[in-house]
Amino acid sequence: MRAREFGIEIGSMKPGRLNAITDVEGVGVGHATLIQGDDVRTGVTAIVPHQRNPFEENVTAAVDLFNAYGKATGLPQVMHTGVIETPIMLTDTLNTWLVADAVLDYLRERYGVTPRSLNPVVGETNGGFLNDSFGRHVRKEHVFAAIDRARSAEGMGVVEEGNVGGGTPMTGYGFKGGIGTASRAFGGSTVGVLVQLNCGRREDLTINGVSVGREVEMPPPEGREPGNSIMMIVATDLALTSRQLWKVAKRAVLGLARTGSFGSNGSGDFVIAFSTGERCVDELIESMPEMRRPRLGEGFLNPFYKATAEATEEAIINALFKAETMVGINGNTRYALPLDQVVSIFKRYGRTARARPRPTPP
Amino acid sequence: MRAREFGIEIGSMKPGRLNAITDVEGVGVGHATLIQGDDVRTGVTAIVPHQRNPFEENVTAAVDLFNAYGKATGLPQVMHTGVIETPIMLTDTLNTWLVADAVLDYLRERYGVTPRSLNPVVGETNGGFLNDSFGRHVRKEHVFAAIDRARSAEGMGVVEEGNVGGGTPMTGYGFKGGIGTASRAFGGSTVGVLVQLNCGRREDLTINGVSVGREVEMPPPEGREPGNSIMMIVATDLALTSRQLWKVAKRAVLGLARTGSFGSNGSGDFVIAFSTGERCVDELIESMPEMRRPRLGEGFLNPFYKATAEATEEAIINALFKAETMVGINGNTRYALPLDQVVSIFKRYGRTARARPRPTPP
Amino acid sequence: MRAREFGIEIGSMKPGRLNAITDVEGVGVGHATLIQGDDVRTGVTAIVPHQRNPFEENVTAAVDLFNAYGKATGLPQVMHTGVIETPIMLTDTLNTWLVADAVLDYLRERYGVTPRSLNPVVGETNGGFLNDSFGRHVRKEHVFAAIDRARSAEGMGVVEEGNVGGGTPMTGYGFKGGIGTASRAFGGSTVGVLVQLNCGRREDLTINGVSVGREVEMPPPEGREPGNSIMMIVATDLALTSRQLWKVAKRAVLGLARTGSFGSNGSGDFVIAFSTGERCVDELIESMPEMRRPRLGEGFLNPFYKATAEATEEAIINALFKAETMVGINGNTRYALPLDQVVSIFKRYGRTARARPRPTPP
Amino acid sequence: MRAREFGIEIGSMKPGRLNAITDVEGVGVGHATLIQGDDVRTGVTAIVPHQRNPFEENVTAAVDLFNAYGKATGLPQVMHTGVIETPIMLTDTLNTWLVADAVLDYLRERYGVTPRSLNPVVGETNGGFLNDSFGRHVRKEHVFAAIDRARSAEGMGVVEEGNVGGGTPMTGYGFKGGIGTASRAFGGSTVGVLVQLNCGRREDLTINGVSVGREVEMPPPEGREPGNSIMMIVATDLALTSRQLWKVAKRAVLGLARTGSFGSNGSGDFVIAFSTGERCVDELIESMPEMRRPRLGEGFLNPFYKATAEATEEAIINALFKAETMVGINGNTRYALPLDQVVSIFKRYGRTARARPRPTPP
Repeated sequence: MRAREFGIEIGSMKPGRLNAITDVEGVGVGHATLIQGDDVRTGVTAIVPHQRNPFEENVTAAVDLFNAYGKATGLPQVMHTGVIETPIMLTDTLNTWLVADAVLDYLRERYGVTPRSLNPVVGETNGGFLNDSFGRHVRKEHVFAAIDRARSAEGMGVVEEGNVGGGTPMTGYGFKGGIGTASRAFGGSTVGVLVQLNCGRREDLTINGVSVGREVEMPPPEGREPGNSIMMIVATDLALTSRQLWKVAKRAVLGLARTGSFGSNGSGDFVIAFSTGERCVDELIESMPEMRRPRLGEGFLNPFYKATAEATEEAIINALFKAETMVGINGNTRYALPLDQVVSIFKRYGRTARARPRPTPP
Repeated sequence: MRAREFGIEIGSMKPGRLNAITDVEGVGVGHATLIQGDDVRTGVTAIVPHQRNPFEENVTAAVDLFNAYGKATGLPQVMHTGVIETPIMLTDTLNTWLVADAVLDYLRERYGVTPRSLNPVVGETNGGFLNDSFGRHVRKEHVFAAIDRARSAEGMGVVEEGNVGGGTPMTGYGFKGGIGTASRAFGGSTVGVLVQLNCGRREDLTINGVSVGREVEMPPPEGREPGNSIMMIVATDLALTSRQLWKVAKRAVLGLARTGSFGSNGSGDFVIAFSTGERCVDELIESMPEMRRPRLGEGFLNPFYKATAEATEEAIINALFKAETMVGINGNTRYALPLDQVVSIFKRYGRTARARPRPTPP
Repeated sequence: MRAREFGIEIGSMKPGRLNAITDVEGVGVGHATLIQGDDVRTGVTAIVPHQRNPFEENVTAAVDLFNAYGKATGLPQVMHTGVIETPIMLTDTLNTWLVADAVLDYLRERYGVTPRSLNPVVGETNGGFLNDSFGRHVRKEHVFAAIDRARSAEGMGVVEEGNVGGGTPMTGYGFKGGIGTASRAFGGSTVGVLVQLNCGRREDLTINGVSVGREVEMPPPEGREPGNSIMMIVATDLALTSRQLWKVAKRAVLGLARTGSFGSNGSGDFVIAFSTGERCVDELIESMPEMRRPRLGEGFLNPFYKATAEATEEAIINALFKAETMVGINGNTRYALPLDQVVSIFKRYGRTARARPRPTPP
Repeated sequence: MRAREFGIEIGSMKPGRLNAITDVEGVGVGHATLIQGDDVRTGVTAIVPHQRNPFEENVTAAVDLFNAYGKATGLPQVMHTGVIETPIMLTDTLNTWLVADAVLDYLRERYGVTPRSLNPVVGETNGGFLNDSFGRHVRKEHVFAAIDRARSAEGMGVVEEGNVGGGTPMTGYGFKGGIGTASRAFGGSTVGVLVQLNCGRREDLTINGVSVGREVEMPPPEGREPGNSIMMIVATDLALTSRQLWKVAKRAVLGLARTGSFGSNGSGDFVIAFSTGERCVDELIESMPEMRRPRLGEGFLNPFYKATAEATEEAIINALFKAETMVGINGNTRYALPLDQVVSIFKRYGRTARARPRPTPP
């Protein structure tokens, strides 16, 4: 169950139909997940901005580097050209470069394009607590599978969360983390966010304002640094310029802050925002009465900012709710967030949290 | 009463002695407040980084521009040189330039320095709802008074909050805002934050995780845009480089996010961080056992990040708690946060909030 | 005489009709020059982006901070909002803030606008070698006169260069500097540049590739730091986005580099670029055959980059050619570039340089 | 022969002993060059900041992104952490990611380190005119060979220039380009620059102020875009902070500008600067009498700025002088700069250029 199914309603704006980044029309998500033997716990996630050839039809994009302890490829060029020309890939740190290289092959094999120059955008977080990261087990076929899946009817539908794709071995706030998503819809437009969550300290975890991390009763997480870094991908259909998207991207960190992160020094906290450009600003303004006023400037961005903060916060919580306890390399274990405790903690703080959820691990 | 006196304990780190920016040794704060007739509601606040001549002894500094809809002066030079050479002044938007000019006179009249070049740092938020801003009532004598006060034993003590100095006419989350401060101490070091709060929408106000803005029962605030912009000043005694201070500065926005702001498009959300350099990194590491490890890198910054986020969040709440209802130009009224309602809302959400506080305005 | 009248043709692109920033239709320039007694050598220059009310009709803009040792106001907001809403003013360092404040009054008195918020853009360089800078002699009436002049048929015509307006007391490469301008036209579009030149060391001065500074025979310039800082204003009529203008702005420094500057540490090397938006990109591409190709991306920016570099280089040389020897405060003297020597140096290096120019000072 | 052997003395500062980046003590350079069959013209260049393990002993570093149309890896992390922890690699665009991945293997195989996180810094320019770039022929063994070579007595000596290593297939100003280097020494310190030159249009080529590109008589270069992008690596022994190195890095573009580039829109113009930290600022100031003055601030950076601009300019010209005509894929030919013509053009413009150099290709 996802956070909202528990009655946890983050923020005040309405989610889109699936409460997922795929609510932005055309956006597709595909995961390839590798769980083999005792020590392979990895994978790759592809996000396609639309169902066409992204190299031929670039999307407007922007980047916010909140704390750039991270190896993501392709970001400087996005910052200067304002466009993305490949799927966005998410994976484990040390797979980053082989994944980037494989995107090049994908273009030739699936689109028949042999570019002389290409700027693959690959983000990463570090799954080394559960995964044999140095083994770099994500290869070309997994990259192909993830993108293929993202380019399909299924890829445009419900997004799998938790221990999948690039998020497979990740940790969030000392619990099992991974992939999470959420969205907000308003005035005919949509903002969708997908995160690969691998950051935060347990004692700082805050769920919709409740300090769950300080109240949970469980042994402390193993590992000196239980998780670090978060990739946040923001999509919208509104035809914003790159500068406007940059300002939207900066709001993702506000949602991150509300879950308790202080942006740890060794954390790669990156935001990539893009627009499919399907809806124009005039339409938006027309459909929102409070926007129809003189000297509006870029005031129409405000609901996008708020939506981005809320959807990022909820995507992070969804990642924690959907991830399951995992045992990995060296027998390392990362426990899932004990949802039964969340329910009782929420009750204690006057919040609703429905249902009989996943019990605390023994 | 301040937030903590109500039993509202934000975060998990300990405040300094005064829970104020002046806990950083040598830092002084002075306000000059102008409340005259029906329409003058303004003032200026000075923060001195130490009690000596700042033009002769510059302090290391950095800036984070989260949403630079604002007129603050001096910031580009701070970004490149990494130092501040004047007091930091806070005032109402349209006073910005006269205040900057007056700092020049202050140097000559009080220090006997006639610089050929000077980079005054002045921040602002917009008090036009209550104040005759265009009148630019803050003049040289007020600037002098504020700095003189900051350069005194009193200036180094308890900091007045609420409707004082630059914060006099400001609004926060649709309630009366203004100046607030808080601090955190750890490992022998201190981080202090002072804010001039003028941003946020009422429905978004969150106090220590509780959505007070949505629960408060009061007529909606007057004015189309009830407040915008926030200046956040971060001080520490640890001798950080400008790059490190920049990373510390970026964490102030995390505290802002937790109070509910989404960084409105017309908001100037600026952070200025400086170090007095009184304490060196090696001392810090020596005094914190968990820091004594190989390959630490800049991991010692983590408590500074967390302290900055926590102290900023608390400084904002303190501004709301200490500000009083004010009537200003055109009879415009900005009501104080009804602390009695805060108490009952907190009780409803399983939080302690002691005492019999200020009642809701009738 | 200007550089081109000497036969010095910088670069390979064609200048506009006046070879001035005013070749960009609608752009106006006005100077107010103060030369009084022995020690007042200052002034202010206004550049209006069009002849209408800039507060009501903002222009798209961007900023490049190459070396931000400078006090220019308004730049952070331009960087985030991508627009300029006032005339651009240039003056002596310590006048900066009074000039910014006076722009506010101009809006009320000339346009009947009383803004609650305003972001005046004022640039500066330091004229303290010849001028009583601390006296801050530029006042409201001079600001008004400069803007009024810029908003007139005359302001849209030939631009006065050398010891005028904000450039009055400035130094360039150890010679008398000040205001200079140049332009380039192509494909129906225009790029115009205006500089306030106050930077460089004599030995580094390079004119169209010739190391004039090393060959000139004259006593070394007085003053330990003979001049520092340069403000470069770039205008175009092509409707570029702020991100594109930012990339154009970065090319001004290429022109500066070719005149010999290494961007001294205490130099404020700022570029402000704006677009009047009168011409659209499609028109440009249509009119330049080499641009009509698939996958052009932003290749159409290339002539704008080259034009910006060339026009900046020529504007700097024009400032040196048009400035006259000036005696100022404390009897300090800054000598004009000896154009007779330039002619003979050019001849020695196989370059044409026509005419009988201004002789070396005795 | 290199530029200086022709009598072309760029700037006024003195080169170091080898006039190469290896004049900075401890810096090593190694090339692996692949020239096979008709279509493989590629390679990889390694620059090691010192002869020890860079992962264990990071060097302070900074980045300037002048025009970030480029795929370089690792730069965001360098910008935030201020350090480099691997050799710096230069190669052909589409090899970028395999080279980054191979650096990981190098650490394990040569240093016995298996890092869980690593930030390889790889720069690239596009050699697709002469090379089968899509073939990605640079593999692990070439990466190992280049780094091994850089970590040797030979690697610390004379640097091969022209068609070697990452520069093998590159083009500069429509002529054969590739690797070039130069240095400047002063006050006991050294600045060294190495470039991988692949940018510029023939008509813009300027050598020491002479417009050689417009005067050369040769058929126009083949290929629509004859070369793009330049990687500039700046090394110094002075212990600068990352912020100071960033300011030094920005000066490389000044040298680039003087060779005629306008920073083409599709050009990746990147600068990476690092310091070995072997010499401290106080020593420098002590050894340069003009630096011994009060309120110096960071004025001691000025000779570093000038040195960086001069050495970058000279490194670019050295790349052109040392590169030889090359035939590659599809029979594409890139001709070397005709040095005989350079001599006569220089003579025409009153410049010395000694010797009987390489003749124009027939």
